[in-house]
Amino acid sequence: MRYRKIPDEAVRRLPMYLRGLLLCGRQGMENVSSRKLAELLHISSAQIRKDLSYFGAFGTPGVGYETAKLAKQIRGILKLAEPNNAALVGLGNLGSALLKYTGFSAYGLEISAVFESSPDKIGKTVRNVKVQDVSKLSTLKNKGIKLGIIAVPASAAQEVAEALVEAGIRGILNFAPFYLDVPKKVKVITIDIAMVLARLPYYLPASA
Amino acid sequence: MRYRKIPDEAVRRLPMYLRGLLLCGRQGMENVSSRKLAELLHISSAQIRKDLSYFGAFGTPGVGYETAKLAKQIRGILKLAEPNNAALVGLGNLGSALLKYTGFSAYGLEISAVFESSPDKIGKTVRNVKVQDVSKLSTLKNKGIKLGIIAVPASAAQEVAEALVEAGIRGILNFAPFYLDVPKKVKVITIDIAMVLARLPYYLPASA
Repeated sequence: MRYRKIPDEAVRRLPMYLRGLLLCGRQGMENVSSRKLAELLHISSAQIRKDLSYFGAFGTPGVGYETAKLAKQIRGILKLAEPNNAALVGLGNLGSALLKYTGFSAYGLEISAVFESSPDKIGKTVRNVKVQDVSKLSTLKNKGIKLGIIAVPASAAQEVAEALVEAGIRGILNFAPFYLDVPKKVKVITIDIAMVLARLPYYLPASA
Repeated sequence: MRYRKIPDEAVRRLPMYLRGLLLCGRQGMENVSSRKLAELLHISSAQIRKDLSYFGAFGTPGVGYETAKLAKQIRGILKLAEPNNAALVGLGNLGSALLKYTGFSAYGLEISAVFESSPDKIGKTVRNVKVQDVSKLSTLKNKGIKLGIIAVPASAAQEVAEALVEAGIRGILNFAPFYLDVPKKVKVITIDIAMVLARLPYYLPASA
């Protein structure tokens, strides 16, 4: 089932709601109001209700949302109900940090394949994942992996993106400060860390 | 000078425009139309014109923007005209990757102080920066550093944020998957990498 005409911004906030609900669940809350969830997430309750309304009718007036049920429903909407495997390309500083990061499992995400170009790293095993030669990206085709993470230098990012698409990848998390030119069927989300940090000085007081 | 009532979303896109203009400059383009810049950045030209209109009148009809001049103006708006130093807290995998990342300099950003809690790392020098004990965060006060980067485990993030604020930090880039409770005068931008990756499966084709 595909959801049409749903703003990317609403989709963007769903994992945040999921994280909030999981936190409420861990605190033993069986129900949570949109107001309480909003407070926890530092967002407006009207925003939460509006975002969720794109996907159906959730919650009961006066009672709120059933924490576990809504979390499950959001997992379903985000296609996180089943585990999702991702292929990481680039095992430099950032790639290594990503491979060792434990935060993906909360969303059922796992890096299950790693590719590198450096002969020093190819063949090694990191976190139970064997590092493969980046020229072997096409082997992904038979593994049902649809997510890719690009953590290579900007100069190599486009070439890697094309190889990933060729190998059947349909969603890319890109850390290169670079616009990837890929077919429309492929969704790319770029995290440009320097660009995010560059937004902060604007908010500094004038006396700084 | 403070700019009022400007949406965060417009500010969010300014560094992207700056990056595009720098790229045009490197390609020898003295002028660039909003249409051409839009194409390069995969965004609508109307969006660019609207965002820039919050900050003044830029460009000449039929000619476009003077590449170098607009880049300089955006640097001014974003307070990137002068170098900005940042303090990094946490030298785990992610923190180490950030410290070694060369992409910050394009925006005049530099990590010039590093703090850690692990005795193994305190006292070492990485990329010409001496790693200090996290209990010494208050020493930032006299160094004119207003930006902080939090790359510690979620369980320590709030405590570190409070120490950073106490030490005069007014802008925080937070990598912990956690909402930091800080005074309103402090701007926090959180990058939750797992949460971003969790948005991708939604866009995968149903057959995946």
